[in-house]
Amino acid sequence: MNKLGIFMNFWEKQWDADHIKYINKAADIGFDILEFQAQPLLEMSDEKLAKIKAEADKRGIELTYSLGLDPKYDISSTDETIRVGGVKYLSEIMNQVKKMDGKIISGVSYAGWGAPDYILEDKSAMLEASVKSMKELVKKAEEMEITYCVEAVNRFEGALLNTSKEAVEYVKMVDSPAIGVLLDTFHMNIEENNIGDAIRYAGKYLKGFHTGENNRVVPGKGHLDWDEIFKALKDVDYKGRIVSEPFVLMGGDVGLSIKTWRNLVDDTTEAGLDKEAKFLLDFEKSMMKKWGL
Amino acid sequence: MNKLGIFMNFWEKQWDADHIKYINKAADIGFDILEFQAQPLLEMSDEKLAKIKAEADKRGIELTYSLGLDPKYDISSTDETIRVGGVKYLSEIMNQVKKMDGKIISGVSYAGWGAPDYILEDKSAMLEASVKSMKELVKKAEEMEITYCVEAVNRFEGALLNTSKEAVEYVKMVDSPAIGVLLDTFHMNIEENNIGDAIRYAGKYLKGFHTGENNRVVPGKGHLDWDEIFKALKDVDYKGRIVSEPFVLMGGDVGLSIKTWRNLVDDTTEAGLDKEAKFLLDFEKSMMKKWGL
Repeated sequence: MNKLGIFMNFWEKQWDADHIKYINKAADIGFDILEFQAQPLLEMSDEKLAKIKAEADKRGIELTYSLGLDPKYDISSTDETIRVGGVKYLSEIMNQVKKMDGKIISGVSYAGWGAPDYILEDKSAMLEASVKSMKELVKKAEEMEITYCVEAVNRFEGALLNTSKEAVEYVKMVDSPAIGVLLDTFHMNIEENNIGDAIRYAGKYLKGFHTGENNRVVPGKGHLDWDEIFKALKDVDYKGRIVSEPFVLMGGDVGLSIKTWRNLVDDTTEAGLDKEAKFLLDFEKSMMKKWGL
Repeated sequence: MNKLGIFMNFWEKQWDADHIKYINKAADIGFDILEFQAQPLLEMSDEKLAKIKAEADKRGIELTYSLGLDPKYDISSTDETIRVGGVKYLSEIMNQVKKMDGKIISGVSYAGWGAPDYILEDKSAMLEASVKSMKELVKKAEEMEITYCVEAVNRFEGALLNTSKEAVEYVKMVDSPAIGVLLDTFHMNIEENNIGDAIRYAGKYLKGFHTGENNRVVPGKGHLDWDEIFKALKDVDYKGRIVSEPFVLMGGDVGLSIKTWRNLVDDTTEAGLDKEAKFLLDFEKSMMKKWGL
């Protein structure tokens, strides 16, 4: 049975927030996983990390980590100073994740988060720099038994890996048991010719999965074809985590990053959002049951 | 029978190009309309405008115009100098369109093209400024018998009007027979809960329609539900133009604006692109026939 999770910033407009509160909320609603941004770990004392981890253990919640890499740490940069700095930065993040006994990191973890603001005619230099960086990072990931996932994202959020095919080719180039592909339904909806085929193309390389509707409301309330998606996950015998990343609130740093320029739910109170989270959990469970996951 | 068109920059990586060539190409393939960016009209002599118009008339091609407004002419700006300058700029564009006997302008024609780079908690001031500007512009559009369409675009390309609902409310506020809503399948796929419902919501306000697949390949080759789309156009008895805006080529100014970071077709030769254009025309005609448009 795949573990099901939710991203903390569904509720919060700032990236950093009260992790303990959301560990408890995720557990109360019935999730197995709480995911949040890895970067704030760097600002936390070992004591704070231990406290968060203890609470998660107590509530039976696994913590998972994603990140959108700040362009100043872009490991696909052809500027060697930036690239090396990025490898060091991600290495430090892995140290923090390991302190939490974390098992997976994902996101735009292979290049700066965001689209280029210059004409790009050829991605080969960017790809070469990123793969070189990643070969260093996965050695550490192997030692730490962390799965380092690269997430294919839509064209407005990155240029290097927009499709399942590009992500699989990247992972093959890095060639390590510690690396995998993460696919996200919101991004696939914008980039893939066929979402089911994209999942099947990833096949055994698929080591993480994010769900979200076409407009980032909770799964089941937009127009994505969830039967196609869950059938494809069954086709590739996917046993990994399924973490939902809905974003429905206008404003704040999260609204700016996600480009949420309106509230996508009528009831924006905490109780209202809790109901949406419960809806998505029930919906995903029903899909898993229907498709035999 | 709805007139069918294609956007010139399907073939060209620069926004300005040889209009005469593409008038002939569109006619040869069988389209009724060639659409291109309105801004280059400002750089053209009256003689050149007349020459392009004469060629279009000779080939039976209607010319239509869209634009992504440069933020320096943002008519939704609360900076009065920018706003007034934007109204003047769009007024000059209308003058040029009128010289071509043009009937429709669309696009991000009500605000600067692009997403805000600041935290946005409230769009009311932006909306008020834009509606104020548009009330001035539609007077001119009424006199010139031009339909001025506002196109709802995805969150990465604009903040003011992301959905059919927002566009309809805007049009009601402007309240003129010369203004209408343009919906685009690529954008709706990212923003609407249900694309058919979004088209039906626009209803009588729908005065322009753009087609493109979820990843901007030609209609019929991605995963959009074209039956749902054409059925909804029939439901609202849509008689207007249907212009396709596929973008499949990496690179150039167009690749940068559209964020095309890979070639989305195998055959990027002109002959290969012509085949794709013919495919989309045949596909749209078959859908129109199927749904009685």
